[in-house]
Amino acid sequence: MCQLLGMNANTPTDVMFSFTGFATRAEEHRDGFGIAFFEGAGVRLLVDAQSARTSPVAEMVRRFPIHSQNIVAHIRKATQGRVTLANTHPFVRELWGRYWVFAHNGDLKDFTPRLHGAFRPVGETDSERAFCWLMQELAKAHASVPTIIELTATLRELTSVPGAFGSFNFMLSNGQALWAHCSTQLHHLVRQHPFALASLHDEDVTVDFAQHATEHDRVAVIVTEPLTRDEAWVAFAPGELRVFADGALLAGA
Amino acid sequence: MCQLLGMNANTPTDVMFSFTGFATRAEEHRDGFGIAFFEGAGVRLLVDAQSARTSPVAEMVRRFPIHSQNIVAHIRKATQGRVTLANTHPFVRELWGRYWVFAHNGDLKDFTPRLHGAFRPVGETDSERAFCWLMQELAKAHASVPTIIELTATLRELTSVPGAFGSFNFMLSNGQALWAHCSTQLHHLVRQHPFALASLHDEDVTVDFAQHATEHDRVAVIVTEPLTRDEAWVAFAPGELRVFADGALLAGA
Repeated sequence: MCQLLGMNANTPTDVMFSFTGFATRAEEHRDGFGIAFFEGAGVRLLVDAQSARTSPVAEMVRRFPIHSQNIVAHIRKATQGRVTLANTHPFVRELWGRYWVFAHNGDLKDFTPRLHGAFRPVGETDSERAFCWLMQELAKAHASVPTIIELTATLRELTSVPGAFGSFNFMLSNGQALWAHCSTQLHHLVRQHPFALASLHDEDVTVDFAQHATEHDRVAVIVTEPLTRDEAWVAFAPGELRVFADGALLAGA
Repeated sequence: MCQLLGMNANTPTDVMFSFTGFATRAEEHRDGFGIAFFEGAGVRLLVDAQSARTSPVAEMVRRFPIHSQNIVAHIRKATQGRVTLANTHPFVRELWGRYWVFAHNGDLKDFTPRLHGAFRPVGETDSERAFCWLMQELAKAHASVPTIIELTATLRELTSVPGAFGSFNFMLSNGQALWAHCSTQLHHLVRQHPFALASLHDEDVTVDFAQHATEHDRVAVIVTEPLTRDEAWVAFAPGELRVFADGALLAGA
């Protein structure tokens, strides 16, 4: 199974600590990785068909502090589609003058929706097909970028369609908010004042966020399996869609 | 003025030598750079709002041999739009299940076409607007990916429209071919057997391509100003559109 990592913050934040823990899991997920950083409306996508443990691109992510308010990362264990750049998540499309970034963990068996709109897969994965379908249906449902609340309601209706074909854990961001949908496994936490120490599960690395953040900083981290030992990760329920904006879970959305 | 660099090869080739010469010109063009590499149908886009001389992303391009058959690079001197990631070339869109990469050098004054289709600019540049318009019109002209010859004929008709609003030097690639249009300044050459020595104009670097290439390798390099002293660069005529496939100029297209 692949692994997902998302970050939504109220101020541009780097993801070096979380990515280090995340990349450690790449040993069994050696079929490429990708990470998308929003910088304003622009998006920076770093991808490699190599394992995140050995890739020079992943090395750059660990070493250079790229600051972003919305990040989506994915480590791939190929289930459908060859190991090529075109099949590597996250995928990016433009809709309503904004970029949309999507990464999927799961396996959608025989989900072959009619794609009659402006979004077509370039690669061969079930994941990109589901993303193109989501974009096509969003484009039908709204004439321009809706509010986060409205978009969440639309997504909640749409996700059940591919969800009926298998496991559909995904993350989606347009740079304004981050949506995370759980079929089988997903967790989140919010780091905010007062900050505490956090130790990575898989590596001997501890960070004191109080030294790196101001009391106004707030960041939500969403991940397949909890990254740290000493923080209170909240599990998603199967079928749950959570939306994060300004570093917090948007309640009631 | 910005600078453009394109490469089209018959076998995956790295661009380290040409990019080194190209990045040297970044001193006066410090408003960001970007480079897109096709790997099969997939595309890897490396961009930075920093100068290509100092950017860690450019450093990675100079050091890691990324092999590609189609490369489009751009060094930016901002004329329209702020210096942000969203305004940094090349731009990427998907059409007919293929990625399209576009970079522009020039200034289109008051080109504000009606964009009623599926392509909208995310940033604020005249360049991205022109690209969205080109994609919209291509989508109208063909139902799916046409042949290179057909696409060239359509592009030749379309380019005169934005071209009437100012200078429209651009490069476009879908990973199968590379189109280069000249308004004011563009040159190309084809490197093939028997290979010779080439020395960069702006740096004290010489490369012996015979040591790096087999006799079957062929690569076309297209650039705003010639990169080397000892090779026969062919200037484009104003208004000329050239198309390159398998490392050669496609004559009669």
